[in-house]
Amino acid sequence: MRYAVLGTGDVGRTLAGKLVELGHEVTLGSRTKDNAAAVEWADSSGPGASHGTFAEAAAFGEVIVNAVGGRVALTVLRAAGEEHLDGKVLLDVSNPMEFEEGELRLSPVESDSVGEQIQRAFPRARVVKSLNTVNCLVMVDPARVPGEHQIFVSGDDASAKEQVTALLGEFGWPAHRVLDLGGIRTARAVEMYLPLWLGLFQGVGHPDFNVEVRRAR
Amino acid sequence: MRYAVLGTGDVGRTLAGKLVELGHEVTLGSRTKDNAAAVEWADSSGPGASHGTFAEAAAFGEVIVNAVGGRVALTVLRAAGEEHLDGKVLLDVSNPMEFEEGELRLSPVESDSVGEQIQRAFPRARVVKSLNTVNCLVMVDPARVPGEHQIFVSGDDASAKEQVTALLGEFGWPAHRVLDLGGIRTARAVEMYLPLWLGLFQGVGHPDFNVEVRRAR
Repeated sequence: MRYAVLGTGDVGRTLAGKLVELGHEVTLGSRTKDNAAAVEWADSSGPGASHGTFAEAAAFGEVIVNAVGGRVALTVLRAAGEEHLDGKVLLDVSNPMEFEEGELRLSPVESDSVGEQIQRAFPRARVVKSLNTVNCLVMVDPARVPGEHQIFVSGDDASAKEQVTALLGEFGWPAHRVLDLGGIRTARAVEMYLPLWLGLFQGVGHPDFNVEVRRAR
Repeated sequence: MRYAVLGTGDVGRTLAGKLVELGHEVTLGSRTKDNAAAVEWADSSGPGASHGTFAEAAAFGEVIVNAVGGRVALTVLRAAGEEHLDGKVLLDVSNPMEFEEGELRLSPVESDSVGEQIQRAFPRARVVKSLNTVNCLVMVDPARVPGEHQIFVSGDDASAKEQVTALLGEFGWPAHRVLDLGGIRTARAVEMYLPLWLGLFQGVGHPDFNVEVRRAR
């Protein structure tokens, strides 16, 4: 499968690297054609790895992964080009958080989410929110954390969620640990979990953790 | 110990009932002196149980439990009387959510929380946020749910958090499963978890669940 991974930060490079390792072809997209992190990643990641602008990556990918910060997602996806998103699965792993004067702030929040913003702006893309509730190393290697901890998917398109669930399976998340929360509106719930994730991160002292939903029956 | 439990809904009556069962004296507080639910609860719950107005309950209690909805908490606590809260541990278990035209809405959110609002309005009360991340039956009987799932505490007063941790121990939460998130500001994190709780509730189909933080080391 051909993937576009938009964003050259830790999240983007980690996801792109895992996808290449799994035998997929990946173009890592960035704002400029000669982004140093993207060039270095492509040069060191073997024949399945390439780099390009957001638009070049999106044109190449059969599946698009949004791995830029949630606050710049719409700008980046517009640069990628609506025509390169149409009909494709668009996996959004972002969180719209920033530290402002030392305080964590989340925006949009509560009455909206990045997942919904993207689906509204690109109605022909098949947006699925997932993976944003764990650190990027856990995203692609859930066995770093013991137990039957889970990952969530949100989206309006059932077949897109199935396709993402299969991809999560390649990453190491068995289907019974993929919890379908419902439509893309439920992206609010997983994005609003981030402040608790950060609180847990401070308590645990490292990012190799996740939550496991325990239930009576 | 003498407790005031403010609020005669499921949460208030469940907490009050457990406290009486544990041998404490409890006044269940409500807006009016003759609230039918409070009268019935007191009549059927044995000699440790009584009922009264918010102010009568708060005057009686050495510890105050806020079990009304988060959106009316300040109004209720003003009715209880600041002089009856001074220096006391005030355990806030509330969530500021309402269904508005079928949509869950949370307010305050992100830049504030009910826990912080209460601490600001009553600076001499020793506010601890806890228990709002589980259903009331799980609050007082965590063994309903299998596993080492946890409960959170947030608050600025360390000794108040210790006292609440001891109370949680009486409810069945061993100290190693009580996670201290930090100051009362972290009440934001647990209040913002509610949309995810509701999403999980819809998926699980009943409220006997909780999350267990799993970690690598």
